[in-house]
Amino acid sequence: MSDTSTRCTIPIITLTTDFTDRDPFVGIMKGIILGINPRVQIVDLCHQVPAYNILEASFLLGSSYRHFPAGTIHVAVVDPGVGSQRRPILAKAGRYFFVAPDNGILSYPYQEEQADLQVFHLTEQQYFRLPISQTFHGRDIFAPVAAWLSTGLAPHLFGPRISDYLQLEVPKPRHLAGRIYEFQIIHRDAFGNLITSIGQEFFSQQLSAGSGERFILEIASQVIDCLKPHYAALREQPGCLVGAIFGSSGHLELFAHQASAAELLQVKVGDTGTITFLE
Amino acid sequence: MSDTSTRCTIPIITLTTDFTDRDPFVGIMKGIILGINPRVQIVDLCHQVPAYNILEASFLLGSSYRHFPAGTIHVAVVDPGVGSQRRPILAKAGRYFFVAPDNGILSYPYQEEQADLQVFHLTEQQYFRLPISQTFHGRDIFAPVAAWLSTGLAPHLFGPRISDYLQLEVPKPRHLAGRIYEFQIIHRDAFGNLITSIGQEFFSQQLSAGSGERFILEIASQVIDCLKPHYAALREQPGCLVGAIFGSSGHLELFAHQASAAELLQVKVGDTGTITFLE
Amino acid sequence: MSDTSTRCTIPIITLTTDFTDRDPFVGIMKGIILGINPRVQIVDLCHQVPAYNILEASFLLGSSYRHFPAGTIHVAVVDPGVGSQRRPILAKAGRYFFVAPDNGILSYPYQEEQADLQVFHLTEQQYFRLPISQTFHGRDIFAPVAAWLSTGLAPHLFGPRISDYLQLEVPKPRHLAGRIYEFQIIHRDAFGNLITSIGQEFFSQQLSAGSGERFILEIASQVIDCLKPHYAALREQPGCLVGAIFGSSGHLELFAHQASAAELLQVKVGDTGTITFLE
Repeated sequence: MSDTSTRCTIPIITLTTDFTDRDPFVGIMKGIILGINPRVQIVDLCHQVPAYNILEASFLLGSSYRHFPAGTIHVAVVDPGVGSQRRPILAKAGRYFFVAPDNGILSYPYQEEQADLQVFHLTEQQYFRLPISQTFHGRDIFAPVAAWLSTGLAPHLFGPRISDYLQLEVPKPRHLAGRIYEFQIIHRDAFGNLITSIGQEFFSQQLSAGSGERFILEIASQVIDCLKPHYAALREQPGCLVGAIFGSSGHLELFAHQASAAELLQVKVGDTGTITFLE
Repeated sequence: MSDTSTRCTIPIITLTTDFTDRDPFVGIMKGIILGINPRVQIVDLCHQVPAYNILEASFLLGSSYRHFPAGTIHVAVVDPGVGSQRRPILAKAGRYFFVAPDNGILSYPYQEEQADLQVFHLTEQQYFRLPISQTFHGRDIFAPVAAWLSTGLAPHLFGPRISDYLQLEVPKPRHLAGRIYEFQIIHRDAFGNLITSIGQEFFSQQLSAGSGERFILEIASQVIDCLKPHYAALREQPGCLVGAIFGSSGHLELFAHQASAAELLQVKVGDTGTITFLE
Repeated sequence: MSDTSTRCTIPIITLTTDFTDRDPFVGIMKGIILGINPRVQIVDLCHQVPAYNILEASFLLGSSYRHFPAGTIHVAVVDPGVGSQRRPILAKAGRYFFVAPDNGILSYPYQEEQADLQVFHLTEQQYFRLPISQTFHGRDIFAPVAAWLSTGLAPHLFGPRISDYLQLEVPKPRHLAGRIYEFQIIHRDAFGNLITSIGQEFFSQQLSAGSGERFILEIASQVIDCLKPHYAALREQPGCLVGAIFGSSGHLELFAHQASAAELLQVKVGDTGTITFLE
């Protein structure tokens, strides 16, 4: 069933920050947005990104942005360099817009949309809130630019196109030897599930190069050798503490039965393990 | 003053989950909803339901749903069985709609609305997001079904009506002897107030069967024997640590003066106490 | 670029409470509001105000309300006296409206808008949700009054104007001797930055009365003697743990480089320090 006809009659702006919910920072950004475009739908994507963790913010953004209608404007503010020389930017990436500091926070979307990517340096101050503070560009630059963009202004009006934007290396399985790869934990979700750097495409290719069925994953002295079809399936296999599954983000994730795999394994973001694809 | 004329000109969808705010799961569900119906008002009811706690989620839903306009669609996703054989359902209960897994999460609303209740098994995949993941039916089934429902589609279009939906037993005071009943703590709110399984109707009936005034409640070696008219009233009675009051959910709750009754009493959800109605 | 033409075509209601996100209290307030005025934009300002901390709620509100369009209705419910004799009020302060208990929670906005301030005692019960509970006036009084106000009703329709509303003393630098002042920590933000009671105007006046450049700030045995232009600037000065900056709220704040100044200094809200302005 198509939803094309209803798309984007009301503009959508999403917000991703490390501001948490302890302060009114996010609410203030919404106030600025609604003062410029009161007809917008504002959606909170995540405000609990670990403070200053640009790459984890990028992963969360990368696993979310495509679930919104075309034309959605994604604002991402994890910005330890606020007020310094780092540039504010606007990216048109595929069917989506992003407004963010140029610190690598858009690396995952860049990777996905490299075939159709334009990045602009935000320089046109008539779209900013003036005077610009040195500590809160979310309020003074990113929110108002997103709001003006949502009124239909073209991206090039906000500043010159640039090509030297910062793109961080996205964690990927690293070849060790033979058919053995090192992977990394790139995110721990609220349930304690551990999301790995092993994407579905890589996994399928490696499997099909062998027997197409068997692999051994090792992390924190735990060996995992089969995929579960769903979370509850682990319950049916006594003695097996942690299972592997392809989660909703398209990455292999490790999970426990109604418990935290992160706590069971004592594993955290950044830790590594190995995966061996059998013949 | 009547609000009938303005009701439901804009559809409302509420969301209750155990997803917390650490991940973009809730935001992703909103993206899916807005892609189907951009004119909906989406309201977060609670995303901090203790993980996998279906009955507590049901209580929170049961104490909230009637405060929304008629026609509101309540989506509830506490779903440890996601991807297994448990069915996705849609319920029309009185003047409200519910979209949820068939795991008992609707037990409190079922109980309230049993006189006007229809439950449908969600089988019509044209209203799903395909392919359906095995880990995130909030995104792939519940959000899109709620969004399509909000466009005005009739409930029976989503699948066949069923009568064997799962209804869990809702905690109620249990008769022990004479006029003594055992009650249970069914929720601890953010202030540390302890909500009991003693409903206002039961309480009034029991009181009026006696002198109509006196009761003794015991829990964790604390004796409580009178109702306070409001929270601040406890301050005026020195030596009395914890008071009882009928809270906004219609249940008797235990509270402390600007402190956590749960911590003072060292009592948690599931713990029990007794209430004796005097002659 | 002016945004006047688009202002307030859609009414905005903001919510500030100490309800946290563990309960559906905030969601219930939104249900009540949408039942009365479904076309309103509701924005969460902050629901993590430390429980019962009226003055900190007031500071957060005071540093946020002006970032919303004129006409915005700010609802603030930190209300330990709920159900007691404290009055519910509606204030028209400058270009904004406030709906709150009369317990001093509006002290910061009062101070800012004293030139154009009218306060009304909410007595007209036809705008309340009846019966009024003794524990949840957010649902029964403040949410419905804000919703009716957002439909365009005049403030005086909700009850009589009063002049004896409660205004708490807002923390300000206290003169100790010579050019030495005592200041107070009035808020700790989510990053651990410590916001002081030193406002920008006071600071500039004191500086310019001397050499216009030099000051010494002491707190928790730490001496800070220069302003940083932005957070990242601290990194460039080895040995300097904590810096001072004028934050987005217009108050001097203490911060650390990608770390919590509150934890580094072991300082909390209410603690004091001194600032000396040099000749």
